[in-house]
Amino acid sequence: MSSERNVTLPEFNPITGAIRALAMDAVQKAKSGHPGAPMGMAEIAEVLWRHHLKHNPANPKWADRDRFVLSNGHGSMLLYALLHLTGYDLSIDDLKNFRQLHSKTPGHPEYGYAPGIETTTGPLGQGVSNAVGMALAEKVLADTFNRPGHAIVDHRTWVFLGDGCLMEGISHEACSLAGTLGLGKLIAFYDDNNISIDGHVDGWFTDDTPKRFEAYGWQVIRDVQGHDPVAIQAAVAQARANTTQPTLICCKTVIGAGAPNKQGGHDVHGAPLGDAEIAAARDYIGWTHPPFEIPQEVYQAWNARETGATAEAEWNARFAAYRSAHPELAAEFERRMGGTLPADWSAHVDTVLAQIGDKAETIATRKASQNAIEAFAPKLPELLGGSADLAGSNLTLWSGAKGVTREAGGNYVYYGVREFGMAAIANGASLHGGLIPYTATFLMFSEYARNALRMAALMKLRQIFVFTHDSIGLGEDGPTHQPVEQTATLRYIPNMDVWRPCDTTESAVAWAHAIERADGPSTLCFSRQNLPFQPRSAEQLSAIRRGGYVLSEAAGGTPQAVILATGSEVALAMAAQKTLAEAGIHVRVVSMPSTNLFDRQDAAYRASVLPAGIPRVAVEAGVTDFWRKYVGLEGAVIGIDRFGESAPAGELFKFFGITAEAVVEAVRAQVG
Amino acid sequence: MSSERNVTLPEFNPITGAIRALAMDAVQKAKSGHPGAPMGMAEIAEVLWRHHLKHNPANPKWADRDRFVLSNGHGSMLLYALLHLTGYDLSIDDLKNFRQLHSKTPGHPEYGYAPGIETTTGPLGQGVSNAVGMALAEKVLADTFNRPGHAIVDHRTWVFLGDGCLMEGISHEACSLAGTLGLGKLIAFYDDNNISIDGHVDGWFTDDTPKRFEAYGWQVIRDVQGHDPVAIQAAVAQARANTTQPTLICCKTVIGAGAPNKQGGHDVHGAPLGDAEIAAARDYIGWTHPPFEIPQEVYQAWNARETGATAEAEWNARFAAYRSAHPELAAEFERRMGGTLPADWSAHVDTVLAQIGDKAETIATRKASQNAIEAFAPKLPELLGGSADLAGSNLTLWSGAKGVTREAGGNYVYYGVREFGMAAIANGASLHGGLIPYTATFLMFSEYARNALRMAALMKLRQIFVFTHDSIGLGEDGPTHQPVEQTATLRYIPNMDVWRPCDTTESAVAWAHAIERADGPSTLCFSRQNLPFQPRSAEQLSAIRRGGYVLSEAAGGTPQAVILATGSEVALAMAAQKTLAEAGIHVRVVSMPSTNLFDRQDAAYRASVLPAGIPRVAVEAGVTDFWRKYVGLEGAVIGIDRFGESAPAGELFKFFGITAEAVVEAVRAQVG
Repeated sequence: MSSERNVTLPEFNPITGAIRALAMDAVQKAKSGHPGAPMGMAEIAEVLWRHHLKHNPANPKWADRDRFVLSNGHGSMLLYALLHLTGYDLSIDDLKNFRQLHSKTPGHPEYGYAPGIETTTGPLGQGVSNAVGMALAEKVLADTFNRPGHAIVDHRTWVFLGDGCLMEGISHEACSLAGTLGLGKLIAFYDDNNISIDGHVDGWFTDDTPKRFEAYGWQVIRDVQGHDPVAIQAAVAQARANTTQPTLICCKTVIGAGAPNKQGGHDVHGAPLGDAEIAAARDYIGWTHPPFEIPQEVYQAWNARETGATAEAEWNARFAAYRSAHPELAAEFERRMGGTLPADWSAHVDTVLAQIGDKAETIATRKASQNAIEAFAPKLPELLGGSADLAGSNLTLWSGAKGVTREAGGNYVYYGVREFGMAAIANGASLHGGLIPYTATFLMFSEYARNALRMAALMKLRQIFVFTHDSIGLGEDGPTHQPVEQTATLRYIPNMDVWRPCDTTESAVAWAHAIERADGPSTLCFSRQNLPFQPRSAEQLSAIRRGGYVLSEAAGGTPQAVILATGSEVALAMAAQKTLAEAGIHVRVVSMPSTNLFDRQDAAYRASVLPAGIPRVAVEAGVTDFWRKYVGLEGAVIGIDRFGESAPAGELFKFFGITAEAVVEAVRAQVG
Repeated sequence: MSSERNVTLPEFNPITGAIRALAMDAVQKAKSGHPGAPMGMAEIAEVLWRHHLKHNPANPKWADRDRFVLSNGHGSMLLYALLHLTGYDLSIDDLKNFRQLHSKTPGHPEYGYAPGIETTTGPLGQGVSNAVGMALAEKVLADTFNRPGHAIVDHRTWVFLGDGCLMEGISHEACSLAGTLGLGKLIAFYDDNNISIDGHVDGWFTDDTPKRFEAYGWQVIRDVQGHDPVAIQAAVAQARANTTQPTLICCKTVIGAGAPNKQGGHDVHGAPLGDAEIAAARDYIGWTHPPFEIPQEVYQAWNARETGATAEAEWNARFAAYRSAHPELAAEFERRMGGTLPADWSAHVDTVLAQIGDKAETIATRKASQNAIEAFAPKLPELLGGSADLAGSNLTLWSGAKGVTREAGGNYVYYGVREFGMAAIANGASLHGGLIPYTATFLMFSEYARNALRMAALMKLRQIFVFTHDSIGLGEDGPTHQPVEQTATLRYIPNMDVWRPCDTTESAVAWAHAIERADGPSTLCFSRQNLPFQPRSAEQLSAIRRGGYVLSEAAGGTPQAVILATGSEVALAMAAQKTLAEAGIHVRVVSMPSTNLFDRQDAAYRASVLPAGIPRVAVEAGVTDFWRKYVGLEGAVIGIDRFGESAPAGELFKFFGITAEAVVEAVRAQVG
């Protein structure tokens, strides 16, 4: 194995021995986990973390730190060991609690659980895509804030990744774009160990990966002996010297190096080594200490608190000089990295909403969305827009949009046809700080990006996903492009706020709320087709932020039924209300732009909008079952539970029976 | 533009003129659509369809036809024009109805709408992935059925694709695997026109695509003048001559070639040309005929009915010889291509179920799934298994599994870490015929593949998606790997049958039903952890196929409440029933392995299982809102509406309150 792959085993020593011991002991104690990657990447980690990574364990949020991403997140014990050894607030007891409930050391690195975890990884390919986003953010912010003699944004993004990440399609999307944009401060180490869960990868993964990355425009350093610190050091030096291309350092390694009988095989990938092999490994690598005991001299060798404090102090001095020279820029940098909105933000939103109310335009909500961007973006230079090759359809460009290029920064990314990569890159930019990313595609293709949306929700990222063409109203492109179940299923992602606004006002409120939301992402679903403006009182206007509200009360104030609607169907509900009133049936119309927000309101408010005992009819151009949570078993739902068809939009609404007439009939049946 | 890209415009002629005219006229009439690709690929299409494609317009289902996939599906008018011109049952009136309701010519090619459409395309990257699956199917079937002197399976798969497909990550997954498996009968034409919707691709897509595909092990033919029939012809000859590698023919083209003022720009990509430009184009390409009028000599030049009939007759003669030499193989080939199951299938299923009932094993349902495969697969050589690098976790291998390799066929594909590619490749294999694919990954990573699952449902494919580790019961790998909303959201895909079995018996029934289902895919969700066997009467056993049934009636037969449960939570429901009975509260337990199937039962059956007026409590380790459709506003749901955590599974069920005790308390609250 070693010989045929021309890979040389490590010269074992106590420095790397600490990583190997912690990894195998913690996995053994947890009775599950992945020792293979930590043991196989110990030398690479040693060179990077002891000699190159710019970080301060005492301040994991230092703005100009290097970012480190373990894209092969199953090797989490490598990262936990590094954080512990270098002096982060992650104790040996935390490591003993690996994979236990409420520990800082879950099975995969989880953002927010331990200091120094820059992103949650595990779903393969997304870590390296997040890293592309972090490097993109660095480029954009450097372009914005650096001034001659003042390079206050100047850090690298380092990634570890394995065969799994490279097989995933998202690695193609993100790395291709990284090459196009020339993200020279992105440096990835490929742990080329020839093993994935099913065994030796020769049967299913025979890419010439270096050639593939050269095709993307990366600098590729081939055939690095991944257990030879001198070779790794030379590669890193070459990577650092190239600032116009991202670099892939291809490291030949032996998975589980240090486990004498299992190394190089897939048994070592994702299971504890067992007591016997661990004992043999201790002997083999010359590690004589009991589990979770690290000699002081080894701690000393790893400890980065002093160098980290020095590095940050040096930057602080430089930032002080920057502040003197450019006080406004410095304040703005701190505001943006702190994630606070401009002081006059709320007043500006109110002004914009008033103007929208005055205009009372009947336009598509995707156009209303563009108008909202146009109104808000000048106040928010942190907005980093983009679309997956649908800028003109999603309407995500605005008058001040400037495309990020290889040569310069900007505030808009032409992501190409790369939905999943786009979302994960934007997650990385959000994680980096200093930017609020918004991205866009057709609602249908939220499915291509779906797991990245979930990751944004899991990590509580401020991140805005714009999805246009939100129903059969898309028309002629047909069933492959017409969302039916997408809005409902996006609402089921925990911590995701989904909005489906009905007009210009709700569209702007949705945007404002998404921008303000600091503890999770928002999904904004917009129509292709024109939707009429709905007039509102001041009270109704402010109630939009509650997710659902009475848009139009029944004449006389005592509704015989309640119609719930979202987006393009609110107009149908309003028309039905009118028709019914003419027949003496008085109904309330509830607009429900965000069920997620409505569900978070207190019971009294919810009951005030949806009073008990009054029949309910919901209408939305999507799957009907979702609405049972509001209308119960007895209520009626007008929607669509089958695939769409290719035809002009107006014909489709009629064909599928999503009409004001259908709402009227449903109400009549309810009030019987 | 032309000069800098070194691309030569066509010598226009009436043969290719017919395609250009039909495309621009149909798009204009529909007032929407994509003329750019049909006009830009007219010469490539002419060479392929008039000189190479083996097909018989009179029999679009001929088993040994070449498969043609338009992966850039937005260029649908190209395919419709080709089908019409070569003699398929697609009239000029059908073309006039382009993008209209109930037409055979929707905005994107839809499988089943017009003869000769081999797959539905539009969602970019999936067409070429389907094509990989078709070529894979051809390889596997050739290996199975061909005998010396009898090459009855011997056809090619041809693909057109554009920049969009190549940017999508799935193209990486599928094409990488195609290279590894050496699918030499797969030939793709890359329409390298330098344009995507956002404009010239230089700003977002700078891959050296030929180099990338060489890295995958493809034969790449570079720099082919895509409007020069001689150059195209030479490239195809080279592609055909190489039977050990797939071939990518990189064709430099001018998008919209023939529209004198718009060609080569992105205005021609996805919008009608307009009357003025169409008039100019007619002049420019020398096409003097009114819209939708094709001269007889042009029809004659395109018509493939005679050559097609000859080709099929020749094959029929060869198949007759094959039948004489190998009658059983011939019969088996016809059975498999016809999609019928073996004659003794039902009896075999009954035998297997009886054995499972006798064994009464407490095992994980993923193990029960493997046992079902082991029991059914020997009868079904058409099963083509696989996993995305999780064979040992998904338990999708069986004793007769034989991996497909570069050198030979088999019945199991090691897909690597490529979930989306896997699903779309399997869709292609199902479309090809002769195979029933099953694929597998963790349930969480259904999200990576989600749109391919939807495409399988849209196309009504017989296709089985196995997803294991179906809840927080996955344990230590944590929230990134623990499904919460996935089962519910999969149930919302129209025409998808989702199963979440509770024991060995339900697992086997789910498998049997999925295998038998000829009009759509099935998703099978299995547990990581052990689940107890549930005894059943013969009536209960047969009721499993109704999706929901009374697993355990309340003592006395008059339930005070009904508990609905699926999968791992059925055991909790049973335990709760027992505890409640001891307290004098008598409840019915309904097992609901497939809500989709249950919803298709008649109202009387549904009411017999869920009688009106009796309180209901649902329990499932997933989002609770889904269950409101069964328990209404008043019922109770035990589930999880937040992300999971990393810990041993047993602890997680307690921590999240998904326990028999919680079910008992919920029932007590209901019966008050």
